[in-house]
Amino acid sequence: MARWASMGERSKRELLVARAFLGAVAEPPAPALARFVTEYGPCRAVGLIQREKAPADVTAEVEARRWHVSGEQLLVAAEAAGVRLVVPEAPEWPREAFDGLFGARSVDLPGIAEPIALWVRGKAALAEAAEQAVAIVGARAATGYGEHVAAEFGHGLATAGFTVASGAAYGIDGAAHRGALAAGGLTVAFLACGVDVDYPAGHGRLLRAIAEQGAVVSEYPLGTPPRKHRFLVRNRLIASFGSATVVVEAGARSGAANTAHTADALGRPVLAVPGPVTSKNSVGCHGMVRSGQAVLVTRTQEVLEALSPLGAQLPVEIPAQSRRTDALHPDARRLHDALTGIDCASADELARDSGLPLGKVRALLPELELAGFVARTERGWSMTGS
Amino acid sequence: MARWASMGERSKRELLVARAFLGAVAEPPAPALARFVTEYGPCRAVGLIQREKAPADVTAEVEARRWHVSGEQLLVAAEAAGVRLVVPEAPEWPREAFDGLFGARSVDLPGIAEPIALWVRGKAALAEAAEQAVAIVGARAATGYGEHVAAEFGHGLATAGFTVASGAAYGIDGAAHRGALAAGGLTVAFLACGVDVDYPAGHGRLLRAIAEQGAVVSEYPLGTPPRKHRFLVRNRLIASFGSATVVVEAGARSGAANTAHTADALGRPVLAVPGPVTSKNSVGCHGMVRSGQAVLVTRTQEVLEALSPLGAQLPVEIPAQSRRTDALHPDARRLHDALTGIDCASADELARDSGLPLGKVRALLPELELAGFVARTERGWSMTGS
Repeated sequence: MARWASMGERSKRELLVARAFLGAVAEPPAPALARFVTEYGPCRAVGLIQREKAPADVTAEVEARRWHVSGEQLLVAAEAAGVRLVVPEAPEWPREAFDGLFGARSVDLPGIAEPIALWVRGKAALAEAAEQAVAIVGARAATGYGEHVAAEFGHGLATAGFTVASGAAYGIDGAAHRGALAAGGLTVAFLACGVDVDYPAGHGRLLRAIAEQGAVVSEYPLGTPPRKHRFLVRNRLIASFGSATVVVEAGARSGAANTAHTADALGRPVLAVPGPVTSKNSVGCHGMVRSGQAVLVTRTQEVLEALSPLGAQLPVEIPAQSRRTDALHPDARRLHDALTGIDCASADELARDSGLPLGKVRALLPELELAGFVARTERGWSMTGS
Repeated sequence: MARWASMGERSKRELLVARAFLGAVAEPPAPALARFVTEYGPCRAVGLIQREKAPADVTAEVEARRWHVSGEQLLVAAEAAGVRLVVPEAPEWPREAFDGLFGARSVDLPGIAEPIALWVRGKAALAEAAEQAVAIVGARAATGYGEHVAAEFGHGLATAGFTVASGAAYGIDGAAHRGALAAGGLTVAFLACGVDVDYPAGHGRLLRAIAEQGAVVSEYPLGTPPRKHRFLVRNRLIASFGSATVVVEAGARSGAANTAHTADALGRPVLAVPGPVTSKNSVGCHGMVRSGQAVLVTRTQEVLEALSPLGAQLPVEIPAQSRRTDALHPDARRLHDALTGIDCASADELARDSGLPLGKVRALLPELELAGFVARTERGWSMTGS
C-alpha cells in the first residue's frame, strides 16, 4: 500500500473511485470482499470483480449490484454535495479505531468486517476525532431521565476533551450529541443511511449541527435509505470508534445492547448507567452489569477512570459530607451521644448511660468542653447547641 | 453448657437472670465481656464481676453499671410487659445467624461481638425465623421510589418464604416490614432501644403489627432510649440475621452502608438496588456495586438466585419480547427489510437493494410468501401488513 503523501493525484483519485465502488457493490458487512480487498488492494480487486474473476464467496456478495454501481458517479455526486470519501490509505482514516474490526473478522460476531470506505460530511477530521472518543448509546424511546443523563455525559465527556460518538437516533443518541455540541466539543454521528438522508426526520437540524462542529459518517452511499439490519451493521462502527461505550437506558433487547455486545467482543470497556428498577428502559443496563459485561457508571468522572490505564486502581470515591463529631474518638462520641436529648447530667449518670468507666467519662468531659461540644452548667453537663 | 431440655426450671431461671444482668451491665458490643462469658459461663461470670474478680478489660466495660443493674428486676419487668429473654442456651436462639458474630470478634470490625441475650416481643420464634431470612435496609429519608421498591422486595421475599429482617426506621426499613406484613409473612425488627420504646415515634403501630406477626428484638433492656452509636451496634444483628443483605437506597454515608459493610465482613452477600444516578439516595448503592462490595439486584428473583448455592451459575435472564421476524434467517430478514416502506419491487430490484445474489432472492421470496411475510402482486413483490 503506497503512502498517501507520496501518491500522485491520479493514483489517489483511482483509489477513491475503486473504494467508492467496493463500498457500494456489496451490502456491508461484506467479509469476503473485505478480505479480498486486503489481499489484492482496491484497484486490482475492482478489476477482478468487473472481469468476473473474483472467487465465489466474493461473487456471492457483489453479484446483485456488480453492473449497477459506478464509483466515479458516486464520488462526483458526493463531492457536489460537500461529502468526502475517507479511505484506509488516507491520513484521515481512524486506523486504530477500526483495526479492531479488521482483527475481529473471525471472532464470534457473525459477518463483522471493517468498513471499506466512509462517506463523511463535516469539518472534523476522523483520525483526530477518534484519538480520544467515547460512544454513548441507548434507547430511542428514552425517558426524560435517560435523556438528561445522556446529555450530562455528552457534555461532561466533550468538556474533558473526548469526542462523543453515537447514532443520531431519537432519545439517548440525540441527547448525547446535543450535550457534546452544547459543550463546544466534537461529536460524530454514524448513520445507517446515506449522510444526505435526514433520518430520523426530526433530526435534520441536529445532523447539520453535528456536521458543522464534528462529522456525520456512513458506509452507505448518498441516498441509501435506512433498513433495520443496517442499524445493527452500523453499530459496529460506533462500538469500535469509541475507546469505551456508555449505555444510557437500554431495554431488554435493543440496538444499544447490540452495540455493547460488539464493544465487549472488541475488548472495549462497556459502561452502563443504572436507573430505576421500575423502568423498562434500564433493564438492559442492569442486565449488563449483573452479567459482568458492563461496569456501572454514574458520572463522567467514572467513565474517565474506566479509560485510564490505572482506572482499576483508583479508589471508588463517594462524595461524603463530614460531620463535626467525625473527628472524635469513638468513646468521646458515645459520651456525646449520651447527652443527646437531655438537659444535663452528672458525670456519674453519663457513665451509667454510656457504659463508659467513670474515670474515662471524667477525663473526656473537659476535652469535649474544650472542643466546644459540651458545657459545664450549675446542674451538670449539657450539650452545646450545634 | 448444659442442654436446655435437661435443665431444671431453677437453673433456667438462674441463667436468664445472669444473662439479663450481663446484657445490661456493659454497653454493647462488649467484646471483653463476651469472651469472659464464653470462657466462664454466664453464672460464674456474674459472680466474678460482682465479687470484683473480673479481669481489667472486663472491669472497664462493666464498672460504670456494675452496682446499678439487677438481672432479676429486668426479667420481672419484661415478663410483666409480655417480653421474653432469649439466651444462647435456649432452643429459640438463632445460633447460625449469630455464630458469625462470635467468630468475627477478632476481624476488622472494631468492637464487634455476639449479643449476650436478646429481648423479644412477638410471637415468632427467632430460630425458626432465622432459618431463611434476608435483611432489607436503606435510607430513612427515602424517596417514593425507594419505598415502593423496598415494599416490593419485602412482599416478594416474604411470599417466597423468607423472613424480612430490618430496623423499623422510617423510609426503607418501614416499607420492607410493611411489604412482608402485607404478604402475611414473617418479619423481624431489630431496635436500637428497648422493645417497649416506640421509636421512631410514628412507628408505634407498625412495631405492634410486627410483634403480632413476627418479632421485635433488642439487646437493650426495656426502657433503654436510642442513641446514635446504638444504631450502628444494632446493625450488626440485622446483618448477621439475614443470609443476605439487600440495600435499597443509601446515601454516600449511611447506616445502611454500615450494615452492608458488616454483612460483607461476615461473608454474607450484599445486594444493592440501583436507582437514578441523579438521586443522592442511590449514591451508596451504586458505590457498593462499583467497588465490588455488592451485587446489583433489580427484583426478588435475583435475590433468591444470590442465596442459592448455584446462584452464580444461573444465567442472567432478561425478559424479552420476541418479534415475528426473529425466526427468519438473517438473509431472509435482510430481504424482508428491503421491502420496508415501499409499495412493491421486482426480485431484481430487491437483489440490488439488499445486496443479496439474485438466485438467493428468487429462492427466499416464495419461502417468505409461504410464511405470510410477503405477497406476490401484479406489479411485483410486496410486504403483507403485519
